[in-house]
Order: sequence, then structure tokens, then C-alpha cells
Amino acid sequence: METILVHEIAGTAILTLLGCGVVANVLLNKTNGHGSDGIVIFFGWGLAVFAAVYVAYDTGAHINPAVTIALLIGPAKEYADGIPITFATTMTYFLAEFIGAFLGAVACFLAYKKQYDETEDAGAILATFSTGPTVKSHGWNIVTEAIGTFVLIFVIIMFGNTPSGLGPLAVALLVVSIGASLGGPTGYAINPARDLGPRIAHAVLPIKNKGGNNWGYALVPVIGPIIGSTLAALAAHIY
Amino acid sequence: METILVHEIAGTAILTLLGCGVVANVLLNKTNGHGSDGIVIFFGWGLAVFAAVYVAYDTGAHINPAVTIALLIGPAKEYADGIPITFATTMTYFLAEFIGAFLGAVACFLAYKKQYDETEDAGAILATFSTGPTVKSHGWNIVTEAIGTFVLIFVIIMFGNTPSGLGPLAVALLVVSIGASLGGPTGYAINPARDLGPRIAHAVLPIKNKGGNNWGYALVPVIGPIIGSTLAALAAHIY
Amino acid sequence: METILVHEIAGTAILTLLGCGVVANVLLNKTNGHGSDGIVIFFGWGLAVFAAVYVAYDTGAHINPAVTIALLIGPAKEYADGIPITFATTMTYFLAEFIGAFLGAVACFLAYKKQYDETEDAGAILATFSTGPTVKSHGWNIVTEAIGTFVLIFVIIMFGNTPSGLGPLAVALLVVSIGASLGGPTGYAINPARDLGPRIAHAVLPIKNKGGNNWGYALVPVIGPIIGSTLAALAAHIY
Amino acid sequence: METILVHEIAGTAILTLLGCGVVANVLLNKTNGHGSDGIVIFFGWGLAVFAAVYVAYDTGAHINPAVTIALLIGPAKEYADGIPITFATTMTYFLAEFIGAFLGAVACFLAYKKQYDETEDAGAILATFSTGPTVKSHGWNIVTEAIGTFVLIFVIIMFGNTPSGLGPLAVALLVVSIGASLGGPTGYAINPARDLGPRIAHAVLPIKNKGGNNWGYALVPVIGPIIGSTLAALAAHIY
Repeated sequence: METILVHEIAGTAILTLLGCGVVANVLLNKTNGHGSDGIVIFFGWGLAVFAAVYVAYDTGAHINPAVTIALLIGPAKEYADGIPITFATTMTYFLAEFIGAFLGAVACFLAYKKQYDETEDAGAILATFSTGPTVKSHGWNIVTEAIGTFVLIFVIIMFGNTPSGLGPLAVALLVVSIGASLGGPTGYAINPARDLGPRIAHAVLPIKNKGGNNWGYALVPVIGPIIGSTLAALAAHIY
Repeated sequence: METILVHEIAGTAILTLLGCGVVANVLLNKTNGHGSDGIVIFFGWGLAVFAAVYVAYDTGAHINPAVTIALLIGPAKEYADGIPITFATTMTYFLAEFIGAFLGAVACFLAYKKQYDETEDAGAILATFSTGPTVKSHGWNIVTEAIGTFVLIFVIIMFGNTPSGLGPLAVALLVVSIGASLGGPTGYAINPARDLGPRIAHAVLPIKNKGGNNWGYALVPVIGPIIGSTLAALAAHIY
Repeated sequence: METILVHEIAGTAILTLLGCGVVANVLLNKTNGHGSDGIVIFFGWGLAVFAAVYVAYDTGAHINPAVTIALLIGPAKEYADGIPITFATTMTYFLAEFIGAFLGAVACFLAYKKQYDETEDAGAILATFSTGPTVKSHGWNIVTEAIGTFVLIFVIIMFGNTPSGLGPLAVALLVVSIGASLGGPTGYAINPARDLGPRIAHAVLPIKNKGGNNWGYALVPVIGPIIGSTLAALAAHIY
Repeated sequence: METILVHEIAGTAILTLLGCGVVANVLLNKTNGHGSDGIVIFFGWGLAVFAAVYVAYDTGAHINPAVTIALLIGPAKEYADGIPITFATTMTYFLAEFIGAFLGAVACFLAYKKQYDETEDAGAILATFSTGPTVKSHGWNIVTEAIGTFVLIFVIIMFGNTPSGLGPLAVALLVVSIGASLGGPTGYAINPARDLGPRIAHAVLPIKNKGGNNWGYALVPVIGPIIGSTLAALAAHIY
């Protein structure tokens, strides 16, 4: 149980440290990457997953409640080698994922402390923590997040059925793909912890020019991924 | 037969969902990726192939009638392990590829529904579905599509002769390459289904500001790839 | 001998078709990739090498006289499995490399025929065929080409000493690297055939708005790579 | 001892030749890559590491004192196969890393000699050699460098615990990731030799329009990486 907690916290923290970091590099003032092209965001998040998967490898590298849910629903008997699927392990994964995502966002804040101080755009600041829609519509935003998460989970399950030899790189490239292809409308949370953990960090951290936390949107990147993940697990089961 | 249908539909749907998706992200209004550099398109389509190949792996991952045609012409006895080359299997592949490409474009439309609503440029809307020439010339456009498809098919056949260890990633990178290098004049359909399926989706979907379907061009990305694929299969045979 | 000729012609033709193609996509008018970022050029040429190496795999995939020269100088006994290093095979490699590079540029011209017609900038047209310096200085331009080719050849030899599992992808990424890092001053020919073959194609093809062939520079991307390759082979030998 | 010296000098020289080179391509005047997007820098440095690791493979490819320090602190008994951890080998690694980083920067200067002559912005010139903060604050700059180096070292140690099959590519992609995600505030030295070696080269080379060497910042990219590396080695030990 302690292993799950430590490894999934560490992995998810690396995920949001590097993931929120790349958004900070592109959006905040006075950074070397300010105004970089979208490709930097897509590879930045993809490679954040790449590093995170190695860090949490021993516990199956969920680093995403949507992955945990898919395994819970699917035919697997274990979350990872030697980790059975029980109520307690499930809750531990969820807890670790949210704590890790929160801590990674805090570390990102520390790395970019002076840049946060120099940035006055509260929308940009929030965007370095959590996602938001470019056109607000809870229903359609959930559809977008569900489709993105469906692709993530369904293709990851396909990876497991295919000899690839790429390991964590395959998942990283899939996330680059989803970001480039399906990240347009909502910023591809496709992971409830990745969004909610940093949003809480945004709420509690002493950020100079921050605005609201957009709690009204907070459930969308939780509900959408849960729907997408559930459908992907069911679809893969009958595939 | 059902396996071919299900897997090739699923694979080709993932292909156009992610492929049309990346064009939507770059071209439609109110997206996070609006105006991104061409590299996003090239990697977006390449990684769409990457994901799609895993999804359709068990049936050889044709996801492109040009691949089916090359195998039909070439010396192979099977389309994939246990799937013989017959009239019925050939037709099933073609059917699945077009249905899948249509469905993927529909899913892309759903993911970007609000962005389609916000976009008034009918040319940009069509471009998220199917390809078109930057300079209209049916003859030369067919030449360009034939050359692009020749490279695709010929090099994929070479992959089969060489130990690479990269699997689907090799095909993905080849598609990135063809997009960057030969996509300039016609938008590199290099796949009749990828173009015609989404074009039909464009025709039937209730898109707010859509214009014509450019049926006058619709045969070019069918004829060009068939020519290129045929020549590649013959060239590889005597190579 | 025929195998060398056919495979190295095919491989080098794929190299310059895709390599000149990516420059055409970025520089010519009326292309989808017009004005794309430098990253497109760097990955475009790198992945051109990727595809080309598979095509010429059976003959060692030289596709570059600098590679042939390095093997000639180095301790190897064969150019590839079953191909001895003799005067005749050496000349055959050179011949094939230049013919292939010429033919690839011709194919690129056909793919972009309408775009060449629409482009009036003779400098841009020449740049899609062969390289040129941003600041003219034969001495320093040779230094730059020699350093770039040294890195190419030396690191390729190191690949051979190291288990990598990446095969042609490693060479492709190395070429991306050299383009991004050392391509600034002279456009990284790092391959006499890649530059001279297309330059001859530029001279003989009926291109609407072409200007001079810059023959005054033509020896620089021959001499520089020969020097760099020779030094790399010697350095690797005593390493 | 001689092997350590030769291989680590060569590897680190390739690192800064290609790494400083990509910055020169983007920042100096009259280059093909002038003004390219940030993605070019991130892949340029990442692939510089890729090439460098192959060159220094036999001695463990430290090419970074932070790596040497992490191995010194950690439970390992050897720096590489057959190279014990002693005071003498440690000093030899450090010496080789700094000499190599210096020599690579000199080679980069030679490759871009004419472009340095054409550039008048002393800040851009210095930036092609060594790193600097976008917002000056020794304390926070050290925090940023320490976090970046922590991620580098901790994840590299995780690579060692996980079957990846990617070898040097994994490290390269990690450096792309750190650059994109954590390079915003200080330009990600994450390697004392990579910063100090080229800074000394900047000081001694006859560069036409150079300004000061910013010695006041020189200790930050030494102290930050040492802290990050030490913490990562300790964290990995109890992980």
C-alpha cells in the first residue's frame, strides 16, 4: 500500500511538474519559451507522461484515475504485478494520484516563482495549473473530454495486446497525438487528477496576480474522463 | 470477416478522428491550437497512423485501400495472419476502411462541435474533413498523390524486409515525412478512404457554415493513390 | 554490382525526393507548408534519411559519398554484407549516389511542378535543390561543412559500437540534430551527392523562373564533407 | 584513466558543439535557423545529448558532473563497467567534462565564425555559450536549476530500473522534456560543465562583438545542479 502511495505520488507529481511546467514556459511572461508554438505544449505534456511512467513503473504507472477506473472495470485481476484490485488499493491509487498532481503543481510554481510574479494575466496563470474550455458548454466539453480519454484508454489497452518494444514511449506519443488532435476545445485534461490536483494548488498557493479557480468547470474534466474511460474499457472488452 | 470489419473500421476511425482532429485544432476558430505551425499537422497525422495501427493490428492494419491494393498486387498470400486474399476479404477491407474513415470524421465533428459552430470559413471547414489542391490541376495533383503514395507503400514494403524493432512507429514517422516533404501541393491524402470517407461525412453532417464538398476533386485522391500503390507494389516486386 | 547500383540509386533518390521536398514545401509559393518553422526542415531531412536507409539497407545504405569514403579509409573490409571494398565497388557507390540524388530531385520537381510555376524567387527555387551559404566565405563554409560531416560520420561509427536497437532511426535523429545545430551557416549538405546531384537537376530541368546554379559554390559541399569524413574515419580509428 | 579522459572529453565536446550550435542557429544573425521556434532548441539540446551519449558510451556517458556526483553519492560501486569510483577517477571525470564542454563551444564558434562576426547583440552571443536567468534572483534561479537537475538525475536512475530498449534516446527525450518544461526561467543548464566550460570559451575566444561573461551568475548553474543531483541520488536511494 505504501509502495502504491509513494510511486503513484512521485509519478503523478513528475507528470504535473513537467506538464504544468511546459504551459508555464509558453504562457507566463519572462520565460525563454514564451509564445512558443503549440508543438511545444504537445511534446511537453507527452514527454511529461514519458518521464512519469518510468517513475511509477513498479505500480503500473496509472498516474491517472481514468486508468485506474479502466482497470477496475476491465477483466484484469491486478493493478500491477502483485497489486490486487481491491477497494483499498483502488482508493490508494486515487488518493496518490490527486496528492501527486497537487504536489507537482506546487513544484512547478516554485520553479517558475519569479515568472508568476511577473505575469498579470490571471487567465494565463490559471491555465498553467488546470484546463478550461475555449468555448464554454458543459455538455460538449464533456463530450470532448470523453472522446479524448476514450482514445487514450482504448489505445493503451491495444498497446498491451501488441508487441511494440517502445514501452513508455508509446504512451507518450499517444498523449502527444491526443493533445495535437483533440486538445483544441478543452485543453485535454483526459485525467481527473491532472486537472483537479493543480486546480487546488492554484487555490491555496500564494500567487501574486491570480484570479478565480473556475470551480464551475472543475467537474467537467472529472466526469468526461470517467465516461470516456468506462466506455473504452467496455469497448476493449468486447473488441 | 467480422474481425476484418470491426478492426479495420476501428483503426480507420481512429485514424481520421485524430487526423481530421489535428487539422481542426489548427484551422478552426476558438481552439487552443489555432494557427499552430505545420509541424503540428505533420506529427498529428503521423501519430494518428501510430495509434490506428495498434488498433487494427490483428488484421494487418491496412486502414488504407492503397495498402490493400498493394498486397493484392504483390506476392503475398495473406492480408494478415490467417486472412487469405480473396475477393470477399478484399471487398471487406475496402468497405471497412471507408466506413471507418467516415465514422472517425463524425467523431471529430462531435469533439469540435462548438468550434465548427464558431467557424465561418467554409474552406477551412472542408479542409478539416478532406484534402484539396493549393493549385488546381487534376493531372499534376494526381502526379503528386501518386508520388506520395508510392513512397508510402514502397518504404512500408522495405520495412518488412528489414529488422527495425520500431513496428508501428516506423510507419508513423514515414507519414510525418511524407506530410512534411510531399504534402505541400495536395495535402497528402495518400489514402482514398481517408479522403472520401470524411468528404461524405462533410456532405451529410449538419455543419453550420459549411460550403460545397468539392466533388470535382474527389476522384483525384482516389486515382493518385491507386496509381502510386500499384507502381510501388510492382517496383518492390522486381527490386 | 547491379545491386549496389539499384539500391543506392533508389535510396539516394528517396533521400533527395523527401529532402528537397520538405524545402520545397516550406519555401515555394502556394504550398500547405509555406513559411513553416525550421523544425519542419530539420525533421523533414532527418526522416528523409530514415526512409532512404530502409530502401538501401541491403547495400549498407551509404546514400552519401562521405559514408563511402569513411568506410574506404577505415578498417572495415566490406561496404556491406558480401560487398568487398574495391575500386569498382567504390566507383559504383559514388555513381549510384549521384545518379540517385539527381533523380530524386527530378521527382521532387514533378511533385511540386505547379508550385515551381507559381514561384518567382530564383534563390528560393535553387534552395529547394542545393545548399548555399548565408554568409559567403569558401574557407569558413568548408569548415562548417567539415565539422557537420565529422559529427555525422563519427557518431554513425559510434552507433556501430553500441547496442541501440534503434537502427535507421538513430541516423535519422542524428541528421535532425546536425541540421538544427550545425545547419545555420551553410544549410548542411554534409553529403556531396545530396548537393551536386540536385544542382545538376536544377541546371537541366525546365524550371520557369530559375536563375543561376551557383556553380561557384558547388565544390564547397564536396570538399567540406570529404575533409570531415576523412578526419572522422581517422579519429574513430584511434579512438 | 586515459579512456575516461578521451571519451568524456569527446562526448561532452559533442554535447556543447551541438547544444551551443542550436542556440547559435536560432539566435545569431544570418543563419538558416534564425528566429526558429523554441521546439528547435529543445530538440536540438535533447539530440545533442543523444549523440554525446553514444560517443562516451564506454565510460558510462556522464558528460555532466551532476551525473558523476549522483553516482558518487548513490549505491553504485562503479562509474561504468570496469571503472571504479575513486578520488582519481572522480577528478578525471570532472576534468574531462569541463575540458570537453570548453572544446565543444570552441568548435561551435568555428562552425558559426561568420555568423558571430555578423551579430552585434552581445547578450545573444553570450547566450549561445552559457545560460542566464530571464529574471535575476540567485536564490530562485538555484531553485529552478535544482528542480530541473533533480528530474534529470532521478528519472535517469529510474531508466536503469526499467526495461526500456530505448537506451540513449530515453535520456535525449528526457532532456527535451526538461528544456520544454523547466527551461523557462534559467535556460536549463542542469549541468555545471555545460555552462562553465562554454562560459570560459566565451571569455577567451576572440569574438568580435562580445560583451561581459556574466561571472556573477556563473556559480548558479554549478550550485543548483549539485543540489538537485544530490537530492535526486538520496531520494532514489530510499525510493
